[in-house]
Amino acid sequence: MKLITYRNGPHAEARLGVVVDHMVVDVERLGDAFGQTFSKDMLGLIDQGQDAVAAIRRALEHTESIRPPGIATAIENVTVLAPIPKPRKNIFGIGLNYVEHVAESAKSLDTSKDLPEKPVVFSKPPTSVIATGEPIQHNAAMTQQLDWEVELAVVIGKRATRIKKEDAMSYVFGYTVINDVSARDNRRAGQWIFSKGQDSYAPMGPCIVTADAIENPHNLELWLTKNGVEKQRSNTRHLLFDIPTLISDISTGITLEPGDIIATGTPSGVGAGRDPQEWMWPGDVIECGVEGIGVIRNPVINIGAV
Amino acid sequence: MKLITYRNGPHAEARLGVVVDHMVVDVERLGDAFGQTFSKDMLGLIDQGQDAVAAIRRALEHTESIRPPGIATAIENVTVLAPIPKPRKNIFGIGLNYVEHVAESAKSLDTSKDLPEKPVVFSKPPTSVIATGEPIQHNAAMTQQLDWEVELAVVIGKRATRIKKEDAMSYVFGYTVINDVSARDNRRAGQWIFSKGQDSYAPMGPCIVTADAIENPHNLELWLTKNGVEKQRSNTRHLLFDIPTLISDISTGITLEPGDIIATGTPSGVGAGRDPQEWMWPGDVIECGVEGIGVIRNPVINIGAV
Repeated sequence: MKLITYRNGPHAEARLGVVVDHMVVDVERLGDAFGQTFSKDMLGLIDQGQDAVAAIRRALEHTESIRPPGIATAIENVTVLAPIPKPRKNIFGIGLNYVEHVAESAKSLDTSKDLPEKPVVFSKPPTSVIATGEPIQHNAAMTQQLDWEVELAVVIGKRATRIKKEDAMSYVFGYTVINDVSARDNRRAGQWIFSKGQDSYAPMGPCIVTADAIENPHNLELWLTKNGVEKQRSNTRHLLFDIPTLISDISTGITLEPGDIIATGTPSGVGAGRDPQEWMWPGDVIECGVEGIGVIRNPVINIGAV
Repeated sequence: MKLITYRNGPHAEARLGVVVDHMVVDVERLGDAFGQTFSKDMLGLIDQGQDAVAAIRRALEHTESIRPPGIATAIENVTVLAPIPKPRKNIFGIGLNYVEHVAESAKSLDTSKDLPEKPVVFSKPPTSVIATGEPIQHNAAMTQQLDWEVELAVVIGKRATRIKKEDAMSYVFGYTVINDVSARDNRRAGQWIFSKGQDSYAPMGPCIVTADAIENPHNLELWLTKNGVEKQRSNTRHLLFDIPTLISDISTGITLEPGDIIATGTPSGVGAGRDPQEWMWPGDVIECGVEGIGVIRNPVINIGAV
C-alpha cells in the first residue's frame, strides 16, 4: 500500500491517503464509509500498527468496484506533503554505507578510506523535512558546497530496544525516499548535523510504501538526477550494513520508536566525489527515486543572506 | 519561577508545578482556583509563552498568604520528572565550548587543539532524557569509557529562524541542567550521536528556571561530583560562544522551536581528560549542579548484555 500525507487546498488540513491507481483515497473517510475509525494522519496509523493497516487494505478491497462518493480525489488535484511532515524526533542518518561512496568520500572529504566497522550514525532535525516539490534552500552566505544524496529510508513501526538482527524486520512499518542534502563546508569539528540538518535539507517522500508491499528492500534500484542528468545509480543490495543490522545496531543503545526514520546511506556519485566537483545551485532541479516507492523532485532556490 | 514536571504517585499522570519554598504548587489547579486555564504540562506552557508565565506568577502572588486547599504538595511527597520528559526533537549539544575543555579533549580524544571557529553542534535524541534520581545505564558490552559532562542548558521559548545576536535572548524561555553523558569509545567515524545519544545519556532537571529569574546566565557556577568528590567546577562566564551567539548561529540554518533545548557545553574536568583517565561505573553516583537552578543526582547501574 502506498500511503501519502496530502491536502486538498493550500490552507486545508493535512490528511492521510492511500494511492490507488491515479486516485488518492482518504483513509479517515474510507473508515467512515465502513463504520470504522481509521487514523487521519500517518503517525496515528503507524502507532495503531499492522492490524490497522490490514483493516484499511480490506476496506479498499471491498470498495474496488464501487467506491463510496467523496472519498477519492484525482492525485493531480491534491498537494502531496512529506509523508511524515513533522517527525517526532531527529531522523537517523547512516554515513558511508555503500563501498564506492566510502572510497569517493575518503578522496574528497575528511573520512577514512577503510570501511566502517559499525554503522556511522548521525542525525537530521525534524525541521529539515520538506515534501516533493518544495524548494531546497541555498544560502550562499553559508555554503558553496551544497550536495545531494539519494537514500532509501526505513520507517520504524514499533518501539525497539536491543533488538536481535533476526527479529529486526518485524519492526519496519515501511519505506520512503530521502535526499540527504549536505552542505559539505558546514561541518563543525567533523560533526555532520549542521551540514546535513539545516531547514529543507531532508526532502522526503513522495509516499510511504508499507513493508508488505516491498518484496525485498535489499534489491531496489535507486538513482538521482540533476537537471535531468543522472548523477547517482545503484541498488540497495550494495548496502554495507543492511536494514536488520542497522535496526539491531542502533537499538542496542538508542530506543527506536514508531515513526522514527532511518536514512540508510547514499551510493557513490555525490557532487563532492566527482572530478571536477559539482554542487547544487539555485535553479537546479534534483530528482531522487527508489524502485517501488517513487520519485521526489525538488528545485533549489536562493534564500539570500539574513 | 522554578517550574517542574512531577507526578504524585508511581502511576499518576505527569503534571506541571511551580516550586515555592518546599512546596509544589500545581499549575493547572492554581488556574482552576482563579477561574483561569493554565497548562498542565511544560511544553504546553512554553507554547503559550511569556504572558502565560506572567499570569501564573500573578496567581501565585495572590495566593501567597492563603493558598486554596489541594493545590500544593510538599516536594518530598512528589516524584520529580525531567522538566521536559519527552522533547519534541533532538537536544542540540555544543561541543568544545570552554577553553580548558578544548585543551583536555585535544590531549585525550580526537579533537583539534585549536579553538573552534564556529559552535560545534551535535545532537542527542529525546529518548536519551532521564530525570534526577533515575539511573544512567552502563552496558559493559558497549562501553568501557562512560564519561560525565555538566552543562547549562537553554530552553527555547519561541520559533527562531535566522535570529540576530542582539535579539536572541528574547527567544529564551528558561534554563535547566544537563549531564551530557558520553561513551567515549562509541564514536562512529568521529560522529558523536551514538556516543552521546544512548538511552539515559541525558539526565536533565531538576527544574526549568524561567529566564526572568536568572539575572545573568553568563555568570553561573557549575560543578559536578562523582561519589561526593568534585570533578568539574567552572562558571558560564567562560563559555567560548555565549548564549546569544549559539541561538543566532544555529538559527542561521536550523529553525529552533518552542521547547527546543541547547546544552551549552561542558568545562574541563571530564573523565577522559584526567590523568589517569576515570570513567563512570555501576555503583557510582553523579551530581551535577548549576547555580540558581539546582542539582540533578543520578546513580549508574549495570544493565548487562542483551
